[in-house]
Amino acid sequence: MIPVITALRWVPPFAQGYVRDHRVRWALEETGRPYRVELVDHAILDSRDYRSWQPFGHVPAYRDGEVELFESGAIVLHIARTSEMLAPVDPAGFARVSAWVIAALNSVEPFVRNVIAIDDFHASEPWAQSYRPIAEAELRRRLAALQDRLADRDFLEDRFSAGDLMMSTVLRDIEASGLLRDYPAVSAFLTRCESRLAFQRAIAAQIEDFRNNAPA
Amino acid sequence: MIPVITALRWVPPFAQGYVRDHRVRWALEETGRPYRVELVDHAILDSRDYRSWQPFGHVPAYRDGEVELFESGAIVLHIARTSEMLAPVDPAGFARVSAWVIAALNSVEPFVRNVIAIDDFHASEPWAQSYRPIAEAELRRRLAALQDRLADRDFLEDRFSAGDLMMSTVLRDIEASGLLRDYPAVSAFLTRCESRLAFQRAIAAQIEDFRNNAPA
Repeated sequence: MIPVITALRWVPPFAQGYVRDHRVRWALEETGRPYRVELVDHAILDSRDYRSWQPFGHVPAYRDGEVELFESGAIVLHIARTSEMLAPVDPAGFARVSAWVIAALNSVEPFVRNVIAIDDFHASEPWAQSYRPIAEAELRRRLAALQDRLADRDFLEDRFSAGDLMMSTVLRDIEASGLLRDYPAVSAFLTRCESRLAFQRAIAAQIEDFRNNAPA
Repeated sequence: MIPVITALRWVPPFAQGYVRDHRVRWALEETGRPYRVELVDHAILDSRDYRSWQPFGHVPAYRDGEVELFESGAIVLHIARTSEMLAPVDPAGFARVSAWVIAALNSVEPFVRNVIAIDDFHASEPWAQSYRPIAEAELRRRLAALQDRLADRDFLEDRFSAGDLMMSTVLRDIEASGLLRDYPAVSAFLTRCESRLAFQRAIAAQIEDFRNNAPA
């Protein structure tokens, strides 16, 4: 059975290329496996049926002949388990990749999210102006750790893996903020990941779906 | 080789029993495996050596005869791969458990963390009073999803797993806030997890280490 993923029917231009199904499309593109997309809207996201598949009402959800899954990180790890393109097959190497996938999602993304939530949605509110330096300082501590890690290597481990895939999709969200200029090895790492053909094919596929479903 | 984990040498009483090495101790207690603790302080956390083990300078880090790891979620999944106590052995069942571990860390914990950061560290600051309702609303959306999920089951899947372990450790952090009163199935789930002997042994072990190293 061809894997099925869910994606949003349409989002405004600033979010196109950044919705999280991109992570799963990218992982599948790295492995060369075809997949099918099921487009969803807000009514579907809130439905009982969809919630029994994705309990939080988000995208992506995923299904193949073996398993039904949610959480982009878990889906990418599941795909990685079936392809050496995304992780070493030995259990120790695979565990290291899992550590970086989870580091992206728990040690970096929450702090990215706090900064971009302010910049994108609350920039003019007085409370956000007071909170912004605190949120930025928290994020900078994590970026500095990544800068140290990446100072003398191309990828987080000794080869491209699902860990780099997840970390780079998290870092993309603050590309426009200019913050990465202070972390040149992180910035170079991001460029390295974004230059992969599979990354670009996944972006193009997501944007193509939005183009085909643009509101009148 | 007996697994080794790192833990903080001492923290103030309000944090005792809540430091993240508890998650790994709990997982190991569920499997019945002995482990050794390496206590660390801030000088060690910032050292080059420790950072090459745990890039963000946090606890826990983990090592066994097979692998060196960081990120509590990745460590718990690694332990779960070697014991049916924490996850089914079939790949599909294991992937479902991974989804819940990652949901705890990415779909719930960041919103818990924002609320408790306000309550514990910024409660009296005017910006925090404006931000608190926004952060609480974000968290409540996730708690409502968990309430739906747990309304008719004891655990997130059909048996206790590493997913329940991670989710309950995340939820514990807001127990004192009173928020869980509005989500009775979540609250009952938390009590169910906390009543496990392995949970309690892990708490006792963490607190015992603090007691043995209390500042003069």
